[in-house]
Amino acid sequence: MTSTGTMGKGDRTREAILARGVDEACRVGLGGLTIGDLATATGLSKSGLFAHFGSKEALQVAVLDAAAQEFGAVVVIPALRAPRGEARVLALLEGWLACGRLRLPGGCLFVKASTELDEQPGPVRDRLAEQHRELVRTIARIFDGGITEGQLRADADPYQFATDLYGVMLVYYHAHRLLADPRAEERARTAVAALLDAARPDPGRRDPARLDPRAGDHR
Amino acid sequence: MTSTGTMGKGDRTREAILARGVDEACRVGLGGLTIGDLATATGLSKSGLFAHFGSKEALQVAVLDAAAQEFGAVVVIPALRAPRGEARVLALLEGWLACGRLRLPGGCLFVKASTELDEQPGPVRDRLAEQHRELVRTIARIFDGGITEGQLRADADPYQFATDLYGVMLVYYHAHRLLADPRAEERARTAVAALLDAARPDPGRRDPARLDPRAGDHR
Repeated sequence: MTSTGTMGKGDRTREAILARGVDEACRVGLGGLTIGDLATATGLSKSGLFAHFGSKEALQVAVLDAAAQEFGAVVVIPALRAPRGEARVLALLEGWLACGRLRLPGGCLFVKASTELDEQPGPVRDRLAEQHRELVRTIARIFDGGITEGQLRADADPYQFATDLYGVMLVYYHAHRLLADPRAEERARTAVAALLDAARPDPGRRDPARLDPRAGDHR
Repeated sequence: MTSTGTMGKGDRTREAILARGVDEACRVGLGGLTIGDLATATGLSKSGLFAHFGSKEALQVAVLDAAAQEFGAVVVIPALRAPRGEARVLALLEGWLACGRLRLPGGCLFVKASTELDEQPGPVRDRLAEQHRELVRTIARIFDGGITEGQLRADADPYQFATDLYGVMLVYYHAHRLLADPRAEERARTAVAALLDAARPDPGRRDPARLDPRAGDHR
């Protein structure tokens, strides 16, 4: 989002429209987005904006892609810089918590569009489902790194962990955003610590490497 | 919903409107509900329907109450008939899973309205938040019964469990509804079994009473 040096005017316009679209969709839902409203909000003509996307569905898919890209840039990619294993799992958790705490629209939309679209078959829902499957694969790979490092049991199931972590994050967003629960983050960290504890070769033992990220393997 | 013997015509009309409203809101969101659409769907005049509720917000609150009542009748009350302790926790889980599997609109709306409304302050969101707090208290009480029975550790945190279980259910709805994941239920049961395992006095030991509900205390 920051490296606009090589972008043309059309790309910047498209990026501005999509950033606004992610923000709006987080507030009123993807279904609440209209090309007319976005045209007004970005100061473009409705026909000019239509020329960028062609249809409301194409706009919704582009907004989802922008949200997923923001989530990747803010949460996933920084986590991949942490040492492989538990440190990387925890970096993913912290980035994701921050994304919710700061109410970054990308993370928010990515989480909330899934309940909005689940009864609405079509290309928008298909794209969202594929994005979620990709996220689950990413979490599973990050967890699997902990098995490779010997920090987690070889028979621990990375896909069960990915599902469990996504549940922890869904209830965190719920508790933080709808209930304004001040303990939401603490509960998420407690839940993830319990998931990791249960996956260690010797249950209950915390790996010392976890306390000192420098002790881990940097890939 | 079945005992209409003592209900007047006005009550039955209201009930029919709300059942349709829960169903519609589950599909298009609470924000997508309009008094006009519901009037058309139920064959009533718009002014007649307006007379029942007075405003769109009052209609939305009434629809949420109807969804919470359905969820209570289908999931919570049957679970309370199971023996106190783990059996009751598992009965709650099974009822909730069935509610999602059968796509009963009450359970669905109750889960999905939370992401829809979290950026929309007002009386509708306030009601939904209070309903969720009440659900968390109910889950915590059910878990606490397992502590009273000596099946779960005295220092286990019923509110952490309630939060964790809600996360398991959110990701189950997500996996079942958006991703059509055939392993969604299995993953939810695995997650809850792990939560209970971690809360037992002797981790990993399953209480024999859990396998035979008749062995438990019936309140």
